[in-house]
Amino acid sequence: MEQYALPIANLIEQLSKLPGIGRKTAQRLAFFILEMDTLEVEQLSKAIINAKEKISLCSICYNLTDMDPCHICEDSKRDKSIICVVEGAKDIIAMERTREFKGQYHVLHGVISPMDNVGPNDIRVRELLNRLSSGEVKEVILATNPTVEGEATALYLSKLIKPLGVRVTRIAHGIPVGGDLEYFDEVTLSKAMENRREL
Amino acid sequence: MEQYALPIANLIEQLSKLPGIGRKTAQRLAFFILEMDTLEVEQLSKAIINAKEKISLCSICYNLTDMDPCHICEDSKRDKSIICVVEGAKDIIAMERTREFKGQYHVLHGVISPMDNVGPNDIRVRELLNRLSSGEVKEVILATNPTVEGEATALYLSKLIKPLGVRVTRIAHGIPVGGDLEYFDEVTLSKAMENRREL
Repeated sequence: MEQYALPIANLIEQLSKLPGIGRKTAQRLAFFILEMDTLEVEQLSKAIINAKEKISLCSICYNLTDMDPCHICEDSKRDKSIICVVEGAKDIIAMERTREFKGQYHVLHGVISPMDNVGPNDIRVRELLNRLSSGEVKEVILATNPTVEGEATALYLSKLIKPLGVRVTRIAHGIPVGGDLEYFDEVTLSKAMENRREL
Repeated sequence: MEQYALPIANLIEQLSKLPGIGRKTAQRLAFFILEMDTLEVEQLSKAIINAKEKISLCSICYNLTDMDPCHICEDSKRDKSIICVVEGAKDIIAMERTREFKGQYHVLHGVISPMDNVGPNDIRVRELLNRLSSGEVKEVILATNPTVEGEATALYLSKLIKPLGVRVTRIAHGIPVGGDLEYFDEVTLSKAMENRREL
């Protein structure tokens, strides 16, 4: 790619490290950035470095936050007796969007996956158990994704937590609202049948 | 989007200003950036600001360059009697990839488009005519895109340049190599028929 002036080539290379950004997209973005106002470019550049510098993990729930504890752990109106366990910080955003759940969270930062060399010690399992030791928590909702790894992690956690006398629940699997029966796989359908409710 | 910590929200907003990056993609990129090494994040941030600072327009051909004149205008091995006129700096990259063209370039930075309020004075037309005044240039190849605006701009330029006694040519339109007849529109096909060559 010797045709590009060095700063452009460098920008393209850096951009193409981002997920879902291939060489072509990186080129398009680079040329767009070169045509942006200097002020806007500075804002973009600063936003990137700023986010990295100011965001850290909450020492209680391991959510991404700019203050410690994070605003959810800090919120006295939230129920400290329920902890919803999720795989990543993104899942908290999704969950909060429902405006239904008023408990606390715990971010595992991954799932147990022997194929990828991720064991229980590589995710925040010990930290979750530590939180339960105070006796304040009455229920743990396991909201890992319904993948093989997510299910295995949920099973593993439930076996660890149940002996502590804490109620352990798993989010329901079934047909999403607005979904169409014919487009869902047989596993989802059988889960939906299995978890049917009395009307 | 109050759920996000401010630096994350800001990063997402800045990223979603880029072309083809919607809110969801911006979120994904932002979380990816937060998980990158600090060093890599610094490199990305610097590459952005650096490109903007160091890249300017070549004072001869208006290509994006980090030195003036650019390496193409500076190259004494290139034929100064042929100028290939393109819409944007990206087109030079595409053209250079062919390794066939050994002349010089001129970047218009746009096309004449009355719908978008772009007239001849908003693109580098005057600069092109100035380059022709020295008498050194024997041929101008109009390589604007085969769009309505690109064609109109080519026609406009040819009318300005021909009276100067300079040969004006237009790149050929037709079926791309490897293309399949049935997938091309009738205008492309009729252009391909019109421009057929003796074998």
